[in-house]
Formats: sequence, C-alpha cells, structure tokens
Amino acid sequence: MTGATETTMTPERLARAALSRLMEPQDAAGLALVQVAGAVDGLRIATGQVAAGPGLEQEISVLLADNGPSASWSGLAAALKRWQPRIPDLAPERDLATMARLGGRLIVPSDELWPAQLADLGIQEPICLWWRGHEQPLPALESSIALVGSRDSTSYGASVTGDLAYSLAQRGMTVVSGGAYGIDAHAHRAALAGGSGAVPTIAVMAGGVDRFYPSGNEDLLRAVCNRGAVLAEVPPGSAPTRYRFLQRNRLIAALSAVTVVVEARWRSGALNTAHHAETLCRAVGAVPGSVHSANSAGCHRLLRDGGAVCVTDAAEVAELAAPSGTALPDQRQVAAQVQDGLTLEDLILLDALPLRSTTSVEKLAAVAGLGQDSVRAGLGRLGLLGLAVSERGGWKRGKATD
Amino acid sequence: MTGATETTMTPERLARAALSRLMEPQDAAGLALVQVAGAVDGLRIATGQVAAGPGLEQEISVLLADNGPSASWSGLAAALKRWQPRIPDLAPERDLATMARLGGRLIVPSDELWPAQLADLGIQEPICLWWRGHEQPLPALESSIALVGSRDSTSYGASVTGDLAYSLAQRGMTVVSGGAYGIDAHAHRAALAGGSGAVPTIAVMAGGVDRFYPSGNEDLLRAVCNRGAVLAEVPPGSAPTRYRFLQRNRLIAALSAVTVVVEARWRSGALNTAHHAETLCRAVGAVPGSVHSANSAGCHRLLRDGGAVCVTDAAEVAELAAPSGTALPDQRQVAAQVQDGLTLEDLILLDALPLRSTTSVEKLAAVAGLGQDSVRAGLGRLGLLGLAVSERGGWKRGKATD
Repeated sequence: MTGATETTMTPERLARAALSRLMEPQDAAGLALVQVAGAVDGLRIATGQVAAGPGLEQEISVLLADNGPSASWSGLAAALKRWQPRIPDLAPERDLATMARLGGRLIVPSDELWPAQLADLGIQEPICLWWRGHEQPLPALESSIALVGSRDSTSYGASVTGDLAYSLAQRGMTVVSGGAYGIDAHAHRAALAGGSGAVPTIAVMAGGVDRFYPSGNEDLLRAVCNRGAVLAEVPPGSAPTRYRFLQRNRLIAALSAVTVVVEARWRSGALNTAHHAETLCRAVGAVPGSVHSANSAGCHRLLRDGGAVCVTDAAEVAELAAPSGTALPDQRQVAAQVQDGLTLEDLILLDALPLRSTTSVEKLAAVAGLGQDSVRAGLGRLGLLGLAVSERGGWKRGKATD
Repeated sequence: MTGATETTMTPERLARAALSRLMEPQDAAGLALVQVAGAVDGLRIATGQVAAGPGLEQEISVLLADNGPSASWSGLAAALKRWQPRIPDLAPERDLATMARLGGRLIVPSDELWPAQLADLGIQEPICLWWRGHEQPLPALESSIALVGSRDSTSYGASVTGDLAYSLAQRGMTVVSGGAYGIDAHAHRAALAGGSGAVPTIAVMAGGVDRFYPSGNEDLLRAVCNRGAVLAEVPPGSAPTRYRFLQRNRLIAALSAVTVVVEARWRSGALNTAHHAETLCRAVGAVPGSVHSANSAGCHRLLRDGGAVCVTDAAEVAELAAPSGTALPDQRQVAAQVQDGLTLEDLILLDALPLRSTTSVEKLAAVAGLGQDSVRAGLGRLGLLGLAVSERGGWKRGKATD
C-alpha cells in the first residue's frame, strides 16, 4: 500500500490530481493549456504561480480552433479568473492519500493502466482518472460494452438488461455503466453474477469515488469495486452535478466499443451517452420494446434516427463489438425447411400436389401450369426429397412437407 | 351492369383475361411475350393458334436479359409446353361474366382505373387485375400504406395494427393488406372503422376474388368489397397456392408507398412483402416489440438489417409516405425545459445553486469553478429566467427549476 502511494506522488501525478479539482470536466481552455504546456507547468500557470509565456495564448487558440467550435474560449485571463476561486482547495497529496486509503489510485495518460481508447476523445480526454478497485488492467476497447438506460426502468428493461449483462459477462466481456438506479444497477449486478474472469463490470461515476452514489447502490458499488472498478475523472469529495453527469457519459461511451441503450424515455441521459458514442464513431445499439412503453420511446427514437442498430440479445451486441470479419455466426437461423432450395417450377408443382388423394401427371400439368415433361421431371426431384410420393399410378404430397 | 360487361369484352380485355388463367403470376416468359407481341397476339402465340415470328424468341431473350437474371427462361418452346395443359380451361367471357355478376370487373394497364404505381414493377407488372368492389379510382401511391404481418398475431400486434390502421384511415389514407387472419384482418377491420372517405382499405388476394378466403374472414372481406376493393391477378376460381401468396406480396408492396410489418416471426411471409418493397425502393417500416416475443423477431430482423425504419405510430408511418418536404411536424417533442437554452457556464452555475439555503457569490465561484464576475453575470441571466433568486444578499435556486 505504502509503495503504491509513493508511486503516485510524482510531480506529473500531483499536478494532474490538482488540475482535476481546479477545472470542471471538459474545460476546453484547461485541457488545451495542459496539452500545450504539460500538466506540471499548466498547473503553475493555472494557479498563477507562473505567468503564461508570450506564445501560449495563441497556441491554445489554435488548438481549440482545430478541435471544433469552442464558444466558451474567451481568453486565458477569463479562464484564470474562473479557476482562481478553487486554488485554496487544492490538496493533491491529501486526495492521493484518500485514494490509497480506499485501496484505490490515480491513473494518468502516461500510465500503462490508462485505457488507450480514451485517446479517441482527443482534446476531451480526461486529465486523469480516480480509480477505486484492485490494480489490474482495464479491458481493451473491443471487450467493453456500455449498457445504459433509465433510472425508472420497467420490469421489461430490468429483465432484458439482466439477460444482456449476464451473457456478455459470461462471454468474458466487461459491462460498463454509470452506477445509477434502474438499468445501470441491473447491468452491474447481472455482470457480477455472470462474470468469472477479471473486471466483469466498471462503474463510471459523475461524482467522487470516495462516496458510493446513490447511497441505495452502496452495496452493489462496493461489489463492483471488489471485482471490477469504480472510476471518475473528478477527485474525491466532488458532488455529482448534472453537468458532471453529462460529461461522465462521454467517458462511458469512450471506454466502450458499443453503447447499448436498453430503455430510455424520449428525453433521457442515456441518449446523451449514445450521442457521445456516435460522435466517437462507436457502435450504438438500441433495444426495441413495446410502442406503448414510454421507457422505450428513446430507444425507438435512436432506431428511427438511424444512428442505432436494433439489438435483441447478447450475440447481436457482441457482433457489433467484434472487429469486422470475426462476427459470430447467427445462431437464430431457424432450421431450414426441406422445400427451401426448390426451383420456382418445383415449388409450384409442390403446391399443386394434393395432400390425401392422388392425381395424374396430366392433371398436375394443368393445375400447376407446367408442361407434362416438366411435371414428370419435377416429381422425380420432389420424390427424392420425400416431398412427393407415388401411389397406385398417381401422385400426392410426401411426408417431408408435414 | 350490362354496359359494364360489354365494355370489358374488347379483344385486349379478353386476351388478358385468358392470359391470366394460362400463366402463373410473374411467368417471366409469358410477361415478356405479352410485352413484345401485345396481349392479343401474345395469347394467339401462347395458345398455338399462331406460330411465333422469327425474331420473337430473340426479342424475348433480350427483354428478359435486360430485366435481370431469368434462370427460368429456357426458350419459347418450353414455355408453350408449360402453357399447353391449361388451354382447354380458357373461358375469358365466362370469367368476365362471373366478375360482372359479383359486381366486379377486370382492369388492364390501359384503363384509367389502373393503379399507375404498378408500372414500377417493370416486366413483373401484372397482366390484369380482377377487381371486386365499387367502380371508383384506387388511391394514388402516396395515399396507400400496406400493413402486413403474422397470421398468429399477439394481442400486442392486434392492438398496434388497430391503432395504426384506424389513424391512417382517419387521415384519409388507404390501408392495403392481404385479407388473411391476424394482422391483415385487424388492419382491414380498423381501417373500415376509421375511414369515412373512399377506399379506406384494399385486400389483395392470392386466389380468385370469387371466393372470400379464408372463409373465417368472409364477412370482413365482404365489407372490404362494399367500402373498398378486393383485388387479385389470378382469375376467378384460382386456388390460393403458396406460390401465388408470394407473388401476391409483390402487388401489396407495389400498390403502397410504405410497407409496414407490424408483427412477423423470424421467417414470415410478411418479410417477403417487405423485401418486395425494398426492391421497388419503397419505404419499409417495422414496428418494434418485446425482444421476448417471437412474433416481433422478424420486425427486429428488418430493423437490424438496416432496410426498415422503426415506426411506432401513424404519424411516423405517414411521414414515410409523404413526399420529402411535406413531412408532418413531430408532435411528440416533450415541452422544452426552461434550462434547455443555457450555456455550459450557466448550467454549471445552476447546478451549484443550493435548493433551500442561500449562498454567496464567492462560494458559488468556488463550487462552480467559475470566476466571480462570471458568477454575477450568470446569476443575472438565471434570475431573469426565474432559475435563480436572491434572498437576504445570498442566492438559491428559483421556482422555475421545479
């Protein structure tokens, strides 16, 4: 434990720990500052210990402009003013000690344990992650599936989530969710039940990981810690605000190869997670449900808008996560019927064959609208398949059509 | 009545009536023969009264080759042999008289009453249509919606079909279906209930329209006749064979701007109709349902394969039928919330405002991670929206957030 704590006390770690308290998640100016100046110097500038060099402001502007519209950028002076009130609260050593005491740690992008897939967020990649749970590699992108949905899930949503999470965990995949009531809780719980390997499930929190929130999920989140991981980009003690929930959703989407929305209302935070996944060009799945259920309206909206794939079981979800070419065979193909391979003429002939009494080739030719030669040849083929039988010189259907 | 019957006794009409008995639906060689030689001469050739001219076989080959793979074309001689057994049964005058007696008629592509949208079938356009019901124009493509699905529909399927068909008919649209048990019957019945204008519903039959099939739907199909139309491309007396069911499906798809599959098993004739619609570049809708319902598995398959749009109510179906630009406004938008238009900073500030006790600008700046000037400006904006209120020099949330 002591060793682990010491490891985390490098200047880079301390700086990122402090920055994560100084700035809200996805503070564009702050993230750009860190990218341009590095975490250690970025913190010095952000806290006013060091004045920004002459080119810095320009570099940040260019970086932000390169990363899409950044309406909130109004110069470094404004950002410094924004950060200033939190400077007195910075205590990275204390935060790291808290994590160590909880059996957790801080990880930063240069760590081996850092999930590589977060780099896809570009400038929105978090400054660090506060991690509660055993020290073990987090799963690779293709093994991670986000299951998200309404807090007020129905029994249908609970049952589908349970089936999906359990089966995915049994396949050795990791179920990522947000630790909330409803779909999130069902997802974590079933993944814990189904998974035998490492990290069956990960909870990504909107607030600090020192507290298990919501309190009704405390036992569940403790179990997630023991078998998987509970993560946040905000430091211990941070409240789970609405803004942080929305930012947290981008982490769920970025960690996962597929984001599946199991149940969501027409307006739902789960749709926000799905949109983050789409932005990252990650697959989005939506579980269909009754058109009468308000809790499926958001899923149907996703399907209708074209961004989501309809998923009904774990195999279909896994297929979305699989690199192309490794998709699982479809196991739902109903057994082919004997008549499936028939030509059009033989199908017409089969239709014309009576079920009980027998009939002649001449009559079959008239009924089927086929020449007598064709009928004879076709009867031969159908006979081989057991689809036609000859009795006392006439023909009728064979047993294979039953 | 006599006048109507006389009108139908032109050589063209008689020839097409006879051809529809001689050939199975979508007999590629026969359809090509009629297109190249015309119906009257085509019938003479098909029945052996006239020998085919020297270039005819070649013309048919070219026409068939132009219309995609035609594996069944094995020369005119084979086709003549196929048609030969039915020549003795030809009695077009009798068939036309039967239709007149039933209050019906035959229509051919040159008739004003011929549905123009069937031309989209190209060489697969039927030779004629046997029509039972009042003589009135059939609806235009954009007013026709096919609702199709399983015979063994669930109560969910029945309820959704009823809602859709009733609402579509109330909007003045025509519901096209196949007259079968299950979804088809629910669609016809609810359209009759909801429609007040002309042709609320059309049944396209796989067998002859002289018999109402299945017999359990006799009353329903009689009502469809009285208010709408019952159509078939096969002549009176024809049995509804499996092959004819599959061919009939292409007519349902071709008559309709949208084909909606309400309930279908993984393998279902309704999927065949949907594929016909796709081939014709017509919109396909699929109604989602429980992932536990085998009767929705075919719908989910359509959604998953990407060809179908998820539809949950009549407005969404109508939107698929509407020429682009005339789509109906989405009426399901939930009332926007007061905080929807807020900037990121104001949203963070709103989150930071306490619900009951008040707090200071300084504290808000620290909690929200914003400069004090920004907090003051933001509080002004939130105050105007009723989202923040000032009490005894402090700030808390306003009533508008409740």
